[in-house]
Parts: sequence; C-alpha cells; structure tokens
Amino acid sequence: MYFTYEQPEFDLNDLDEIRRVIAEAYENGREHTSTGKVADYIPELAKANASDFGICVKNMSGEKLSFGETEKRFSIQSISKVINLAASLKFLGFRETFSHVKMEPSGDAFNSILKLDLASDLPFNPMINAGAIQVMSMLSNFMDYDDLLSFSRAFCMDDKIMLNEEVYCSERDTGDRNRAIAYLLKSKGVLQGDPDKTLDLYFKMCSLNVNAESLANMGLLIANGGTNPFTGKHIIHPGYIRTIRSLMYTCGLYDESGEYGVLVGIPSKSGVGGGIVASVKERWGIGTYGPALNEKGNSAGGIAALQHMSHLLRLNAFC
Amino acid sequence: MYFTYEQPEFDLNDLDEIRRVIAEAYENGREHTSTGKVADYIPELAKANASDFGICVKNMSGEKLSFGETEKRFSIQSISKVINLAASLKFLGFRETFSHVKMEPSGDAFNSILKLDLASDLPFNPMINAGAIQVMSMLSNFMDYDDLLSFSRAFCMDDKIMLNEEVYCSERDTGDRNRAIAYLLKSKGVLQGDPDKTLDLYFKMCSLNVNAESLANMGLLIANGGTNPFTGKHIIHPGYIRTIRSLMYTCGLYDESGEYGVLVGIPSKSGVGGGIVASVKERWGIGTYGPALNEKGNSAGGIAALQHMSHLLRLNAFC
Amino acid sequence: MYFTYEQPEFDLNDLDEIRRVIAEAYENGREHTSTGKVADYIPELAKANASDFGICVKNMSGEKLSFGETEKRFSIQSISKVINLAASLKFLGFRETFSHVKMEPSGDAFNSILKLDLASDLPFNPMINAGAIQVMSMLSNFMDYDDLLSFSRAFCMDDKIMLNEEVYCSERDTGDRNRAIAYLLKSKGVLQGDPDKTLDLYFKMCSLNVNAESLANMGLLIANGGTNPFTGKHIIHPGYIRTIRSLMYTCGLYDESGEYGVLVGIPSKSGVGGGIVASVKERWGIGTYGPALNEKGNSAGGIAALQHMSHLLRLNAFC
Amino acid sequence: MYFTYEQPEFDLNDLDEIRRVIAEAYENGREHTSTGKVADYIPELAKANASDFGICVKNMSGEKLSFGETEKRFSIQSISKVINLAASLKFLGFRETFSHVKMEPSGDAFNSILKLDLASDLPFNPMINAGAIQVMSMLSNFMDYDDLLSFSRAFCMDDKIMLNEEVYCSERDTGDRNRAIAYLLKSKGVLQGDPDKTLDLYFKMCSLNVNAESLANMGLLIANGGTNPFTGKHIIHPGYIRTIRSLMYTCGLYDESGEYGVLVGIPSKSGVGGGIVASVKERWGIGTYGPALNEKGNSAGGIAALQHMSHLLRLNAFC
Repeated sequence: MYFTYEQPEFDLNDLDEIRRVIAEAYENGREHTSTGKVADYIPELAKANASDFGICVKNMSGEKLSFGETEKRFSIQSISKVINLAASLKFLGFRETFSHVKMEPSGDAFNSILKLDLASDLPFNPMINAGAIQVMSMLSNFMDYDDLLSFSRAFCMDDKIMLNEEVYCSERDTGDRNRAIAYLLKSKGVLQGDPDKTLDLYFKMCSLNVNAESLANMGLLIANGGTNPFTGKHIIHPGYIRTIRSLMYTCGLYDESGEYGVLVGIPSKSGVGGGIVASVKERWGIGTYGPALNEKGNSAGGIAALQHMSHLLRLNAFC
Repeated sequence: MYFTYEQPEFDLNDLDEIRRVIAEAYENGREHTSTGKVADYIPELAKANASDFGICVKNMSGEKLSFGETEKRFSIQSISKVINLAASLKFLGFRETFSHVKMEPSGDAFNSILKLDLASDLPFNPMINAGAIQVMSMLSNFMDYDDLLSFSRAFCMDDKIMLNEEVYCSERDTGDRNRAIAYLLKSKGVLQGDPDKTLDLYFKMCSLNVNAESLANMGLLIANGGTNPFTGKHIIHPGYIRTIRSLMYTCGLYDESGEYGVLVGIPSKSGVGGGIVASVKERWGIGTYGPALNEKGNSAGGIAALQHMSHLLRLNAFC
Repeated sequence: MYFTYEQPEFDLNDLDEIRRVIAEAYENGREHTSTGKVADYIPELAKANASDFGICVKNMSGEKLSFGETEKRFSIQSISKVINLAASLKFLGFRETFSHVKMEPSGDAFNSILKLDLASDLPFNPMINAGAIQVMSMLSNFMDYDDLLSFSRAFCMDDKIMLNEEVYCSERDTGDRNRAIAYLLKSKGVLQGDPDKTLDLYFKMCSLNVNAESLANMGLLIANGGTNPFTGKHIIHPGYIRTIRSLMYTCGLYDESGEYGVLVGIPSKSGVGGGIVASVKERWGIGTYGPALNEKGNSAGGIAALQHMSHLLRLNAFC
Repeated sequence: MYFTYEQPEFDLNDLDEIRRVIAEAYENGREHTSTGKVADYIPELAKANASDFGICVKNMSGEKLSFGETEKRFSIQSISKVINLAASLKFLGFRETFSHVKMEPSGDAFNSILKLDLASDLPFNPMINAGAIQVMSMLSNFMDYDDLLSFSRAFCMDDKIMLNEEVYCSERDTGDRNRAIAYLLKSKGVLQGDPDKTLDLYFKMCSLNVNAESLANMGLLIANGGTNPFTGKHIIHPGYIRTIRSLMYTCGLYDESGEYGVLVGIPSKSGVGGGIVASVKERWGIGTYGPALNEKGNSAGGIAALQHMSHLLRLNAFC
C-alpha cells in the first residue's frame, strides 16, 4: 500500500501533525494485528492477546506519544540480541566480537542451522540465534546475569525490567533447538565456555520483561549515539552505534530484513514476543508491541504502523 | 584498521581537506590492489592490469576529484544490475517488479543456485545473478538492447558507454552457469519469455564499457534522487531511489554486503570488472576502479579506499 | 503389510504355485493403483489411464506369465538410464564412465540440483537425471540416436521399440530443469560436448515406447549376465552387469531406493511413465506397468506387486 | 584395479586356494594402510597404530583363517549401529523402529545435520549418527547398558567384549556434534526420552572393545540368519536379517556405500575405530581391522582386502 512513491510534504516541527500521523499509524497497526498469529512455539508466548497493540514514540526532550498497550509487559525475546551485541562491543570490543561471529545477513530463518553446517563455522550475524548464542558465550566469561540485567536496564533506560520467570522456564524447557545450535558451535570450536551456562544466560536475556516504552527508550539511546539523553550518561561509545545500527538494518527482522529495509528503512529489531524497536537517528526512539506475528515471525501490527510512519514522516534512512 | 571508533572532527566545507583525504584514500586503495586477484572466470577479464586503481568523486556542482585510472574503460558487470532494476522500476513499476523477485539478502555467493532450489521459487533479490536475470526477463518484453543502452547512458550521464564486444563474446561463451539459472527459473514458471533472449540482453548489459567517472555519475544521479543534477532531467522518479539505495545497502556487495555496511556504510554496488559505485545522499557520487578482487569478488582497492573516505569524512549512513 | 518376517515355505519348481502367487501379486498391484497419481509434469504423461496395471514375468526358457496391461506401450522414461549406463560401460568402459559420474545414492529427488551445487561437481550416480545427462554427454560423442535405438532394442530384446514422438516433443518442450542441470554440469567443466545435442538424445531415450514385456526382457537379459538367453548373443559383458545391478539396488527407485531394498530387495529401476524393471539373478526378468505413481514418483501398483512376489517367492537378494 | 571384469574361475571347495587368496587380500590390505590416516577427532582414536592390519574369516563349521592383528582390541564405533538396529528390531519390532527413522541412504557424511534440517524430520537411516541416536532413544526406554552389553556379546559371539573406558570418556567429552544432533531431534519431537541418557548409551555402545574375530563372528551370525551356528541359539529372527543386510548394503559405508557396493558388494558396516564387518550369506563372516582410514572415514586396508577377496572369490551379491 505504500509502494507508491508519492510522499506528502511535511513540516516536522508541527507536533500536532506528527501526533496525527502517529495516531493513524497506531490505527493502521491495530487493524493489521488480525493478519498475524501469536507465537506458539513456547507455551508462555501463546497466552498473549493477539489483538493487543501499542506504539510509543519518544524524542530527545523526553516528549512521548503513546497509543494503546504501551505499558503492558512482554518478553523482549530476540530484541535482547541488540543488548547482547552492545555489551559485547562495549566490554570485549569490535575486534574480539567479530572474530567469532560474522556480519552478514543469512537469508535464512532466525533459528536456522543450515548455514552453520554448510557455509561457515562462524555464525552469520549476531541477530540470529546462532550468532547471539555465540556472542553470549563470549560475554558469559565476563558478565553474569546480574551484570547483564543492569546493562539491559541502562540500555533501555528502564529500571523496572525484570526476569519473566514463566517465560524463562518455558524457554529453558523447550529450547532444544537452541541447545542443538550451541552444541554444534561447541563442536566446531567456536563457542567459548560452557554451553549450558551460555544458554541459561541467553534464555534469561530473552525472558526480560519490557514494554513498548522500554523499547522506545532503547531506540532513543541508539538514536542518541549511545548516550542517555536525559542523564547524559554514556552507556556505549558512539563509535559502536554505527555497527549496531547497520546490523539492525541488514539483519534486524530475520529473513524479512531486506523488504523491511525497502518499505520502512529504519534500523529496527523485532522479537517473537511481539516487540519492535526502531531508532530514528538523532531524533526518536520508537517501540511497538503487537504479539500477532506474520509468517516471518515479525509483529504484523508493528510493521504496518512503522511503515505508515516512515512513509508519511519520511523516516527512511534512504529516502 | 578502521575498527576503532574514534573519528576526527572534520569541516566538510573545507575542500582542500576533502581533497587531501580522498588522495589518501586513493593511495590506500592503490596499495590494497596487491591483496586481490583479477577475475579469471571470463578470459577477457583476466587481461586486466591488477595494479590499476582509480577513484573519481563528483558533487552536485559538477566539481570532480580524480585520482589514478579514472578514464580507462572496463566492463560494468554486476553494476548493471542497478540499471536493470532502475529500468524495471521505471517501466514496470514497483509492484510488477517485486512480484517476481524478492528483496532479501541471500547470504550466498552472487551466482548461487542453492536458495533458488531450496528456499524459494523467486530469486532472493535483483542484485544477484538469478534476480537480475529474472528482472531482465521481464524487461525484455518491453525494451531491446538499444533502449537499455540509451537508458544506461542517461543513468550514468555518459554518452560514450558502448558494448565491449570482446567481453560480451566472452560472457556469452562462458555463461553456462547463468544459462543454468535461467532455465531453472524457467522450469519454475518464474522467468518470463525466452531464456536465450533474456540472457543475451543480460550478457550485453554486463559488457557495457564504463570508467570510474561513469560510475561516479551514476552514484551522483542516485544521490540526487534520480535527477541529472546538470540538466535537471528526471531519469527515474525519486520514489524509486529509496528502493534502489536500500537494496544496494543490504545486497550490493554480494555476500560481503553486511560487513561492508558496517565498515563503509554507503549504498554501493560492485562488479567483477573491478568497479564500485557508491552514492552519498544529496552530496556525492563516487566511482572506483580496481580489477584486483578480494575473495568475495569485490574490488580490494575500492573497498579500502571507500572505507578510508567513509571513516574520515563520516559518510556512513548510520554514523 | 509385509513387515512381518514369516515367509511361507515354497516349492520353486511348482509352476502352478508360482502362477498363483503372481496372479495375486497382480491383483494386489492393480488395487494399489488407486493410491497413486499419474505424472502430470509432462502433458503427454498426464493422458495415461491411472487404473492401468500389468505384470509380465519371463524365465530363461522363454516361459512367460502375463497379467493385465502388458502389451500397451508407454514411455520408458528413467528406465532408459539403465540402458544409457550399459551403453557407456560397453562402449566407454568402467573407468571412463565413472571418472565423470559417481556411484553414490544421493538421498535427494531424481531431478535435484542440490548435491550438484553443494557437495560435488560430479553427479552422484547415473540413475538420477544429472548423472544420466552426464553419461549421455559422453555417449553422444560416440553414438547417435540410431545407435542408441539399436542398442535399446537389443537390450530389451524388442525390435518394436520406437520413439514416441508426442512424448519426445513434450519432454523437449518442458525440459527446462534438465536444461538447467546440463548447463550447470557444463559450467563445471564436467559435461562433455554440446548440452543441446546431449539433451536431445536424453529426451529421445526417455521417450522410447516399451511395454511390460520389453521390461521383463530387459530384466531377463540382466539376470542372464548380459547375454540374450534365446539367441545366445552377448549384448554386454557379464562383468558390467555386477555394476548395473548394484546401482539399480542402491539408486534405482529415486529416494525410495533404500526402503524398496528392504521391502522388495530386487535390483530394479522405475520410470515416471509407470514402468518398473526388476531382475532376479539367473532366473527371471519382471516388468510392471502402472502409471499411477506414489509420492516418490514410483509406480504404486508396481511396488505393491513386486513386494508381494518378493515376499512370497523369497526373491529378496538379502533374504 | 578391480575395475576389469575378468574374474578367474575358482573352486570354492579348494580350501588351500581360498587360504591363498585371503593371504593375498591381507597383504593387499596391509599395503593400503599407508594410504589412510588414523582418526583424530577423538584423542583416544589417534593413539592407534596406523600400520596395523588384520583379517579374520570364519565359516559355519567354525574354521577360521586369521592374518595379522586379529586379536588386538579396538573400539567398535559405528559398527555398533548394526547391533542397535538389531536390538531395536528384536525388541521393538520393524514397524515401531521404522516409524521413527527412515531406510534411505542420505548421500551425506555420517555426522551430517543437513538432511535433518532440510529434507526430513526423521533421520535418513539407522547407519548414520542421527539415525542411530534416534534408535538408541527408543531402545533406552527398554534396555539399559547391561542389557545392551549382553546383547552385543551374543550378537558377536564374544563374551570378552567390554567397555573401553578411555574411549568412552573421550567420546563423551568430545561428543558435541552428537549432542547437537540429539537436541535437534528432540526439538523436532522425534527423539524419545532424555537426550543425555540416550547419548550416554550411544557413546558406550560406540566404545565397546572388539577385535577382528568378534566382527567375523558378527558377520557369521548375520550370514546364518541370526542364529549362532555353533550353539544353535536364535539371537534375532531371520526375518529381520533381511532388513539389516539390505541397510548394510545401501548405507553401511557412509557416503562411500554405493561405490563399495559396486566394487565389493558384500553387506558390510565400517567404524572409525578401523573395523569392518562383512557378511557373506550362508557362508562366512569377515572381520577386518585397520585403523588407517580413507577420506570417507572407512578403513583403507579393510576396503582393499575385501575388494580383493570379493573379486577373486566372487562374493559380490550381484556378481
């Protein structure tokens, strides 16, 4: 529907106009929830309400536009891969991080083992399960869960982030495919340390409870070059943000990343819990929540809303 | 070497400074030619001089910085995929184009058949051989070689572009893998029209003779939203440029696209003839020529020079 | 149904008993035609009568037991791969033949390109399309269609074998996947000579018209070590028969070969035209015709009948 | 070297002649040990003596021909897959066994994960790791290690079979790829019971200490339809032997099975410990030991010796 190339002229200083567009985007997203389905590969995720939808946009001044379910907590799932990568860049550095994981979109599903067995011993990128598990294996030698939780709270400017115990147990009890990935990496001499310890941290990070506002905050921190715009605290060096944003662009929405880049064009990361974080450089953080997923595992409502906003507000990085 | 995150402050209005940086980038690129090898899968390509290197940067005012071999002609090869895509968008439209080819990075080599047989009947994107052949099969119903040549000249603002007959014959005589791809697409009911006619046009487009300046021009036209900045002529609607730039970003350097995005971060497209086109939004077109290729089939010198420039001049889209 | 391991004692000299068992096998096969579907990937094949079924068993004395449609002609399809291999062994020898094709079951579908692109430049075996096309490319340098037709007639002891022109045209017009395979082999430097000439011969050999009796004859010739038992003429040296029989056993029924080996256990080859040839060492040739195919592309009725016979008459090579 | 099709006439009742041929086969095998390399993926295996070679042939009367290292113990490795399959057929039955594993040669390496992720949820056959682990998961609900050890001793007519503790520890400590396979099977809902318990039994079975004579005994039991020829005790019903022999033929030598079938043609199974068991129907059991492996992971000496014997003594099932 946004395939047409006509984009209206728009005054980005007109806040009322912006509010109106985001309200439209919210309606659009909410309607699209009916085209998706709640994830059911983990029992806890299947309990989500498929028609829930919320969007939160926040700017550097702390102004916030919230529509719908923006306070309801849900599990962060794959969006934690951004946090893991950020932690790895901050604590291990660029060189060490990328000596054990590549930076290439894989073209395969998020939980694919194919490339790992066929094409390369190193996982293709930190945004798919294999890559994130690899990153976590390196981190696990330096950080424990408490460290990661603290870093996650700082990265999302949200001290209320907690472990969702039910989701964590559910992840752990049904995580056999991730165990297979970890042991395959171990057998190749790529995974460092203990697979079980690595997986435990990985599952815990996937089970952190966030809401659309936490994600907007995360997007804002990234948009602000890694510095909390309200406290001025440097969470991660601006030099690493380039890497994170680029990998979000090329690999952030699983095997829908390329199409999302064309249609939305904002560095983003999705999770099967229903969240999407999007980061509009130097301007906004955006968080959406809509647990009804499309067939690629991305929030159906979230994509619809972000496409609407990106189109009308010209947020596409390559517009 | 540019993995450090420190980037110097830089006055983009200081032309002498820019000239100095680009001269450095040229030297850097020229040195890196020794790390690559000239393509040898086509006899004509093997004749190139491995130590050749050139870079041309052009801005909207027509100011041009040229270093090294910027006038020597070479075959455009895969960079023609950008022109094919642009023609398809212009003449067939977005919907029609992408109903027969996807927009996803494949994670595989440019000439891979794997994904086509395993994952999807539609080619993954227009920047790999399978996708470009598919695009050409659609175009071939509407355009002949003369039309495509005219469009290529306009798109590169270069009326001297001609068919390199030797390369064309070489391509045609050794193009069995591309024939395999075309027939596989045909067998799936995806390829439209006649495989031989499609391949002939595809080989011809790969055999157009350009130089680094033609590529700088192409980059400039894309940077300028599809309009020739000197004549004001609209070559392709600005709305389509978003799509082209995004696909160059996610898929433009074969299975090195993700890493290039992180390290360079400028929408670009490479060809095994040794060229790279890069497009810095609203500012510059950049063309490099260096036929010594790295193991992914991308110009070793070109990548080194572009990484240098991107780093020092902060050209990364996600900087 | 034959998974039980109890096999009745049986007097193999009691011809009435044998006749009774084969009549049962025929009934069994005929009933199983309803579980299959006629091939439709080629228009001509789709015209077959799904309920047709016939079985012909012939011994060294020329005694023949025929039930059902044993005279109706149909296209030999993949069973011609056995003839091509025999011709290659006879005229090029073992060493030359297997320096360009392997002897391994592939585990993939008959028309798969996967292994060819992933695992090996050489086709996995002469019983899949890629391998048979490769064999034909070598043969085509020494034999033309008339030579191959003569050899086929001798190999099937059937002078009435003719080209089915409709099937041939249908094969040729829809053979794009086979063209893709031929050009892929060519691009790897494996295929010898001209792909088009090779494919033309390959399509012609697939389009020979045989009937169940021709196949019984072929099975008998193989069972007799390559010599026509009625004329005493040596068609192919007994030393090559070992190779043919072993490859029929491991690779003769596409990706159902392993299961067929366990359940039937007679060296056999199937074709999508509905035929199966089976060869009981030193005793019988068996030909079945039943164009209703199971999901692996093998004759549903043929397998049922052969399993019945093999079980009751203890024909399994590893019984 | 045995590609020629001339086979000498041979009097199988002339024991001196047979002894002479087997002595030649032994010399041949011993010489070929220099073409292989000892397995090194498990530290314990790397300790083997690459030039060791032995062959043991035993007939139904208990006559035994032994040459070279036939008493030295080594770990049975993949040959235990035959025992596991036999136990599964005996205790769970044909139907139950093959409702969870297929019977197809895979064309892939013994430890491949590819097919499991691409082509089928069920492992391709019980002779590759994935299939054997699956079989063991079913067995583990009914048998413990002591049961399996007893069955192994009976199946090999060798009460001295013991666990090689060093190999077992080595297997367990380096078995990450097998763990990956087990967890992948678990994630697909195919593996039954506990992966760790299954793997422990699987590793133990791989670590049983046999010698060439144990393997000759195993081959003899299979050749005798599952009955100990010396005690008359039925170890496994003759009806299951057909299945075991057929799967040994099509899948017994990893991705060299097809070629081995053509060149040797005796139902056999190899292990990376250096053993090969071969079973000549109603006549002989053959065991070879030669830890120097070819590139497919099969004993270089064993294959050479068996090919020699098969050729001169016409042991090929399809001769």
